[in-house]
Amino acid sequence: MAALKARNILITGANRGLGLEMVRQLVEIPYPNRQIFACCRDPDGPKSKDLRELAEKHPKVIKIIRLDVADANSIREAAKKVGSLLEKNGLNLLVNNAGVVKHTNLLDTSTEDMWNIFDANVMGPFTVTKEFIPYLRTAVKASGTPGMSCDKAAVINVSTYAASLASVDKTYPHWIAFPYNVTKTALNMMTVLAAIDFKPEEILFTALHPGWVKTELGGEGAMIGVRESIEGMLHVMSGLTEKQNGAYMDYTGKTLPW
Amino acid sequence: MAALKARNILITGANRGLGLEMVRQLVEIPYPNRQIFACCRDPDGPKSKDLRELAEKHPKVIKIIRLDVADANSIREAAKKVGSLLEKNGLNLLVNNAGVVKHTNLLDTSTEDMWNIFDANVMGPFTVTKEFIPYLRTAVKASGTPGMSCDKAAVINVSTYAASLASVDKTYPHWIAFPYNVTKTALNMMTVLAAIDFKPEEILFTALHPGWVKTELGGEGAMIGVRESIEGMLHVMSGLTEKQNGAYMDYTGKTLPW
Repeated sequence: MAALKARNILITGANRGLGLEMVRQLVEIPYPNRQIFACCRDPDGPKSKDLRELAEKHPKVIKIIRLDVADANSIREAAKKVGSLLEKNGLNLLVNNAGVVKHTNLLDTSTEDMWNIFDANVMGPFTVTKEFIPYLRTAVKASGTPGMSCDKAAVINVSTYAASLASVDKTYPHWIAFPYNVTKTALNMMTVLAAIDFKPEEILFTALHPGWVKTELGGEGAMIGVRESIEGMLHVMSGLTEKQNGAYMDYTGKTLPW
Repeated sequence: MAALKARNILITGANRGLGLEMVRQLVEIPYPNRQIFACCRDPDGPKSKDLRELAEKHPKVIKIIRLDVADANSIREAAKKVGSLLEKNGLNLLVNNAGVVKHTNLLDTSTEDMWNIFDANVMGPFTVTKEFIPYLRTAVKASGTPGMSCDKAAVINVSTYAASLASVDKTYPHWIAFPYNVTKTALNMMTVLAAIDFKPEEILFTALHPGWVKTELGGEGAMIGVRESIEGMLHVMSGLTEKQNGAYMDYTGKTLPW
């Protein structure tokens, strides 16, 4: 089990799949006064039932927050609410996990698909990052230690191997998802630019590929389960330093080609 | 001078900068019955004066077409109009040149900037490619020769070295343009995916970096002039084969790191 020592953690898309499993595993790692902000679009809906049940078992640790990554207003509302619960400790770890896939090639992708998937996969992490930066800055100040880590102040963007420009000839023919690939590659660029922008402030940015995981997004033919993926990702996250600022890695810690 | 033998060529953003210079140099290369479709947002406006003057000198070769890459309807109208002029020869070469830049870092980039620049730099080439594919297919049929080339059927996406994920630590600190980098990297991914999608149909897709050019976009501090950039690009384009399908190269023919 990973020894992540981030006090306050926020995860988008936390009601199912990888996001829910991350909340589940994090709640098992003992840490004093930890708060996990489990964000999802519809906290009261049927798709958030598992998250609600988990939160009922750990009411002090898990706070369910309404946040729709495709709705800038809901992101701002969520930031306000989370901010009021963080106080002087700030937010240590932000995981931009929510994402959308569509299995079409270029010609079969509609204009609307492109806009919607860009909205969720790029504008979501963009706006969430902007809105929560003040709380990450607070966490840097509260830490008082030099260097970068997920325990101190970090943004993890959940990327995909399918976003690797150098590897699409191997991945795309088996898993066609034109708008997903295009927007996740944009997210990779956002990660490396943010890593440069916020390096002087010691806020870490890393893009992580969770593996090809058996979730609604990954499909039935996937290679690994959510438990293995999240165990790996949390282990990798717990070891990140300034050396991995702007890196693109998978859940085993391997650096991926751009 | 490059010996490009494409009969019918379409260029977006052709009223100034690199686009205009490309029209200017192409018109000097003698080729029987060549048609150059010089597309721009506002053919009658003051910013298209130079293009209008050039077209008046070569009325048989240059056709000015209204096409706003940020307006899907105008792209469809342009495709209809160009289609009626192409007849059985089809379109040999499509150059997605129009693009927008904004010099801001992540925090200073507004939501509106992100949408607008995604619209111009990604949705523009996406929709233009979709609308003109039928004419590129016609060109493949009309050619009757195997293999890929810009003379037969090709899409050149004007990219930028600033879109290289592997190189942003060298480029971004000197030329901050967050939304430009993010969207141009997305365009690179679009190029490689399209290269896979259309490989069986022998339509070539390549991303070209024009160099750091003294234009409105490149700024005064740039390294080379538009003439040198376009001479290089046309030379590179004239030599492209199926080996460069899905490649990312600069105006000197050098392959760039992703």
